[in-house]
Amino acid sequence: MSTVATHTDRSATRPDTPVVAPPGLAGVVVATTSLGDVRGAEGFFHYRQYDAVDLARSCSIEEVWHLLLRGHLPTTGELAAFRATIAEAQVLAPDVRAQLDAVAVAALAPPMTSLRTSLSALGGALRLEPVWDLSPAQRERDALRVAVQVPVVTAAAYRRGQGLDPVAPRADLGYAANHLWMLTGAEPREHHVRALERYLCLTVDHGFNASTFTARVVASTGADVAACVVAALGALSGPLHGGAPSRALDSLDEIGTPELARPWADAQLAESRRIMGFGHAIYRAKDPRSELLRETAEELGGPLAELAVAAESAIDDALDAARPDRTLRANVEFYAGVVMHECGVPREMFTPTFAVSRVLGWTAHILEQALDRKIIRPSARYAGPPPPQPVPALGDRG
Amino acid sequence: MSTVATHTDRSATRPDTPVVAPPGLAGVVVATTSLGDVRGAEGFFHYRQYDAVDLARSCSIEEVWHLLLRGHLPTTGELAAFRATIAEAQVLAPDVRAQLDAVAVAALAPPMTSLRTSLSALGGALRLEPVWDLSPAQRERDALRVAVQVPVVTAAAYRRGQGLDPVAPRADLGYAANHLWMLTGAEPREHHVRALERYLCLTVDHGFNASTFTARVVASTGADVAACVVAALGALSGPLHGGAPSRALDSLDEIGTPELARPWADAQLAESRRIMGFGHAIYRAKDPRSELLRETAEELGGPLAELAVAAESAIDDALDAARPDRTLRANVEFYAGVVMHECGVPREMFTPTFAVSRVLGWTAHILEQALDRKIIRPSARYAGPPPPQPVPALGDRG
Repeated sequence: MSTVATHTDRSATRPDTPVVAPPGLAGVVVATTSLGDVRGAEGFFHYRQYDAVDLARSCSIEEVWHLLLRGHLPTTGELAAFRATIAEAQVLAPDVRAQLDAVAVAALAPPMTSLRTSLSALGGALRLEPVWDLSPAQRERDALRVAVQVPVVTAAAYRRGQGLDPVAPRADLGYAANHLWMLTGAEPREHHVRALERYLCLTVDHGFNASTFTARVVASTGADVAACVVAALGALSGPLHGGAPSRALDSLDEIGTPELARPWADAQLAESRRIMGFGHAIYRAKDPRSELLRETAEELGGPLAELAVAAESAIDDALDAARPDRTLRANVEFYAGVVMHECGVPREMFTPTFAVSRVLGWTAHILEQALDRKIIRPSARYAGPPPPQPVPALGDRG
Repeated sequence: MSTVATHTDRSATRPDTPVVAPPGLAGVVVATTSLGDVRGAEGFFHYRQYDAVDLARSCSIEEVWHLLLRGHLPTTGELAAFRATIAEAQVLAPDVRAQLDAVAVAALAPPMTSLRTSLSALGGALRLEPVWDLSPAQRERDALRVAVQVPVVTAAAYRRGQGLDPVAPRADLGYAANHLWMLTGAEPREHHVRALERYLCLTVDHGFNASTFTARVVASTGADVAACVVAALGALSGPLHGGAPSRALDSLDEIGTPELARPWADAQLAESRRIMGFGHAIYRAKDPRSELLRETAEELGGPLAELAVAAESAIDDALDAARPDRTLRANVEFYAGVVMHECGVPREMFTPTFAVSRVLGWTAHILEQALDRKIIRPSARYAGPPPPQPVPALGDRG
């Protein structure tokens, strides 16, 4: 890490004045990365040197993952080899498969919890070693082996919960198509695959969000790749992070028909309730992800997409009227739910599908963090009564 | 969080200059806490207003956990009630127990991985809800239910690995005594319990180390308590964080006899190898934990304790001679291994025993973080080629 501490001069002369970060570390640069960036004010984000929206329009998720993991977009030959590597990694040794199946059957739980438990068990079954004990090639191999199981185990858990048998991944299908295939057991339709792929490409990485940062903090201890991914899954399971796509769709259910969107939005705002799927911590005006997802939803068509477009417009108007001082626009979650629904992803699998995408970004961050042999260990300001007070004996405490 | 951003004035006038943290966030104040602090220069650390070493000398681990969790040392009545609550939480409903047992049997893995998988499954079996959907009392209940299972599941996994049946916790034993009881199946001896308890009290919390910080980042997303603890376990499994106590003991094995300590240390230093168990990122001179642990090891006696004391002295001399510019003294890990070994904790259970202690601190941090409804989401500095470059078509990439 080659960051330059801008406070160095000050702390050298005033050693008692620590650097105090703003709440949530907002805006604090904690690392140097070559993976990409989010420019909130411009409504722009990129993976390496490419506009992420451009990539989502024209590339497969395998190409984007290759770009993040290996630093460049693959040639035709590299892409074929990378797809073969992924297909190979999806097939587990029989004893590992048996362990995972036994854990998944025993640990019935909500999808994100079930996914977390299975991935943790996978790390054990594969006998993963600390990233620091591995060569870069071995680290990448572990990252691939862990990431490609996310769609496999989460689809299997979903189907078991429905009383259905799991469906194995197919070597002839790509990452996005396999996700639909393993969830539904039906031959995925090309326009669904392409729409889902756009969603995956748009959400694979997005700066130092809480789950990505979690993966990097754990990687900074030298832990194995599964430990990092399992930790990140925990962060993604938090309602403030990965929990919103289905809630935005719940709002559309409540709205019901386009003409009821405006009165619904006015009522929400009058009661000071948050409108899910609008506003973003970093994007001040437009969220570039929502624009391509809206276009994708409109291409897919269907009554839900029509309702969403009408509702977005009505909610925009209601927000402009109620909050003229702020610009709150549809964020990634608003149309993500619509697109996933139209592609046949069940609502309870929206957040796991987010994990299917984001885990690819996490792996790139874990490999980047592993190059920096420095543990992440911040400080805090103590604000309690001053120590040391004498410890009162048990009988003397009143 | 009531931190004041000292850079506010500057960033207000120079919005393009972000706050750049030093590598590893070293010294950066990321939160306000009432739980305690580490004063590295003074060789002093405290839990709330009490010197942690004073607490370890005179209090049980239950008293220290009560102090961290509820803000004050318990009265006699509060302590009895707290012990009863812990004993109650250790007993799982039969269906939850059955799920955990099935997962543990299926997910055979190294101890920390096995512990992580079991705790993840526990969160699912208990159907834990996001901390933000819970009252403070419900959060504390979840924290207790998760933490008290750490010694239970890790001892059971150890015994299964040895071909032995798990041993259930006993309501008449405290947290430390139960740990020894569940590991060995033998009635724990009072001086072993007291020695282990000192170790637990000394390691229950220690500032914003990587695992504690991980737990807080995950808690900041609103995720459930198990998600936070599972993530922290991943960080603790990293060789830079929780991995060292057994390595320090491995060094003592290599040394063999007291008179060989100095030549061994000289040889290590001559070959620029790190001496495990010496030096600390934050304590510049003495580590206050090592002092009480040395005393405890000497009270326990035995050849390993004698070797350790002689080796410490010889290594000190060797370090002073080789590195006159630095003061490297024994850290917590050097005597922790000796104390755990003399108490009958198997070497492969040293890091899990660290988890048995540290999880109590994590729970207090998770509850404190849950009061602050702000997600932790830092930034990074992008250092790759400038975007946006046009995306080359697949056939045009060379």
